[in-house]
Amino acid sequence: MISVALMGHGVVGSGVAEILTTHKQKLFSSIGEEIYLKHILDLREFPESPLADRFTKDFEDIASDREVRVVIETMGGVNPAYEFTKRCLAEGKSVVTSNKELVARHGAELLQLAKDNNANYLFEASVGGGIPILRPINQCLVANMVDEIAGILNGTTNFILTKMINENMPFDEALKLAQDLGYAERNPEADVEGHDACRKICILASLAYGKHIYPDNVHTEGITKIALEDVEYAASWGGVVKLIGKCKLLESGLMDIVVAPMFVPCTSQLANINDVFNGIMVRGDCTGDVVFYGKGAGKLPTASAVVADVVDCCKHLKARKRLFWVDTKGEDCIADYKESLTKIYLRCISQDADAAYNKAQDVFGGITRLTRADADASEFAFVTENEMPYGDILKAQAELESAGIKVASAIRIGNL
Amino acid sequence: MISVALMGHGVVGSGVAEILTTHKQKLFSSIGEEIYLKHILDLREFPESPLADRFTKDFEDIASDREVRVVIETMGGVNPAYEFTKRCLAEGKSVVTSNKELVARHGAELLQLAKDNNANYLFEASVGGGIPILRPINQCLVANMVDEIAGILNGTTNFILTKMINENMPFDEALKLAQDLGYAERNPEADVEGHDACRKICILASLAYGKHIYPDNVHTEGITKIALEDVEYAASWGGVVKLIGKCKLLESGLMDIVVAPMFVPCTSQLANINDVFNGIMVRGDCTGDVVFYGKGAGKLPTASAVVADVVDCCKHLKARKRLFWVDTKGEDCIADYKESLTKIYLRCISQDADAAYNKAQDVFGGITRLTRADADASEFAFVTENEMPYGDILKAQAELESAGIKVASAIRIGNL
Repeated sequence: MISVALMGHGVVGSGVAEILTTHKQKLFSSIGEEIYLKHILDLREFPESPLADRFTKDFEDIASDREVRVVIETMGGVNPAYEFTKRCLAEGKSVVTSNKELVARHGAELLQLAKDNNANYLFEASVGGGIPILRPINQCLVANMVDEIAGILNGTTNFILTKMINENMPFDEALKLAQDLGYAERNPEADVEGHDACRKICILASLAYGKHIYPDNVHTEGITKIALEDVEYAASWGGVVKLIGKCKLLESGLMDIVVAPMFVPCTSQLANINDVFNGIMVRGDCTGDVVFYGKGAGKLPTASAVVADVVDCCKHLKARKRLFWVDTKGEDCIADYKESLTKIYLRCISQDADAAYNKAQDVFGGITRLTRADADASEFAFVTENEMPYGDILKAQAELESAGIKVASAIRIGNL
Repeated sequence: MISVALMGHGVVGSGVAEILTTHKQKLFSSIGEEIYLKHILDLREFPESPLADRFTKDFEDIASDREVRVVIETMGGVNPAYEFTKRCLAEGKSVVTSNKELVARHGAELLQLAKDNNANYLFEASVGGGIPILRPINQCLVANMVDEIAGILNGTTNFILTKMINENMPFDEALKLAQDLGYAERNPEADVEGHDACRKICILASLAYGKHIYPDNVHTEGITKIALEDVEYAASWGGVVKLIGKCKLLESGLMDIVVAPMFVPCTSQLANINDVFNGIMVRGDCTGDVVFYGKGAGKLPTASAVVADVVDCCKHLKARKRLFWVDTKGEDCIADYKESLTKIYLRCISQDADAAYNKAQDVFGGITRLTRADADASEFAFVTENEMPYGDILKAQAELESAGIKVASAIRIGNL
């Protein structure tokens, strides 16, 4: 029997407790021992829970219990999860978490602490919810150099964009629907501004390339400026607008990493990932493109990924998993986003659209005009034919603006 | 340094040798030790190989070398791979393979032998080529009961069907193209009759449910009877024809397992998997649908999956991976395919199509008529509205035939 403890009995945490109970037999046959959920830390009372006798409000009950070998942290947020995790690892306990914010912010330090104490720190559930992704990258694709990772990493924004694409629903209305359905928070900033997707691509990049990538250093754009006009132009181009988190190792050794809405061609596997689903493409030098698809959030999907990590810890009580990356502190490993090469889509407004289109042609070189039904005569849109550094695109946009041409929208073309 | 040996220097085997050389540093940092490819068994000569000095024609050089801890079997076919694998496992060496035929036929016995000798027998590459699938099912989804697995498991037939769907190319022509491109063998039976897909769904089912499923016991239909007319009707229904391998655990504890072409709705993730790509959907009780997509065959994708297993063996030289299923011998764990519930598509020919359609309505109950452009007046097609046991469908078809209505095609509707 292996004793474990749970910190945080919220949505995911209560799912973990549920799975440990309902799937007891399956877990036993995988580990060869029973998992015993000895303590549950939460400041709230759960008198109706069948596990009511396990609840505590005192972290010390877990930290100082030497029988507890694995601690599950599903509290979310950085504090006090960070301090609690450090203490547990220092005590030689393995820690499993779904806390993407904590991993993205302090992952390297916590992995080092785990290593120093011969324990494991695992966080499969922090990216892609129930989708297996970190373990496949770390184990199954170990014989590959990962050339690129690109994914739809946030279900809330994907739900909103799907409504905009399939039902012609404006952004504000789609956001309100997402809030009404419980997919989006009342303060939706972390989702719609791309911060949640950013944390996840940082974790994926850190794992794939072995160096901690800090979210604050990653250029991040959300979807709040996407209009239905852009969705229509994307369709006429042959694709859809998706919020993509993307990282690519450059020949310089620096990482090209960005979170931004992108035009994704319909032929891409990522174009067909709709609603709250997530999809992650990993481009390996041997495998080519591999794509993982599933529910990126939700109580039981996320909890099942947490429990899979618990099982792994239970099987490796005396051994360490080689899941590791080093700290970087500085930004040196990330390339300036203005040097990132991309094609771009622009939607512009000008009193003399034809003259303005000619001006755009002069400024950008080869461009292809897009059309949509019912466009105002003052509107025109195009995609560039060649990749340019993003900084040059910004300069070209400024040139259009100074010529009296309004740039209403600029969206990267994803090479996916 | 860990010594390994390779048996079979064909397409996949030479890929393994290549990856062990080109990815030496990455593998070292994952294992913490170097992998040394000490012997390569092949009856042919490879004087130009940089590893020419490692080749041998004598299996004993590997079997009796106590330094060799892991043996890679990429010979294919049952003999002599079966005898060689048994001997290696009996010597306490772990064995890694891409040989789906051997695993599907003798997996349970070889897993037991591995267990008895405290060794590992791993075969990630046997299903889905470079796509991580067995390890995710076994590890990442360990906290799920797997309700169902369904996949496009054979790239050759998927290439042929894609050509039929997207380019209106008849089956024979698409097959010839696949042969010219090297995707199909000169004798394409194993692919087009569904045997290859059958071996793979058997391996997936065995792993997910813990009991060996023998390919000979699985009802298997190929794609040779699919006509362009069927592809058109599938489109008018809102989907595509795909060769699907599918297994589902019934409440009785028996397994509903089949390989057959199916109508797949465009909304399914499996509908968008084209060309030689594979896609596998795993329906877990906690995760919901998870889909894995990538190259199901090819030298480096398959070899990279083999090498990932080698790495796993090297990390677990003294420990056993809990990858296991028991032998069943009999058929008792598989439900009679005639009891399998499904909706069906039928394309029929009759001099009086309208009367015949009314007859079909009598025989099948609720049906929905499909249309296509340029259909002959004698042709009609429909899908049933309710699921029926497959045996009842066969009886209903016989009733149509005995009323002078020719059933030109019958394809299951996939609930995917």
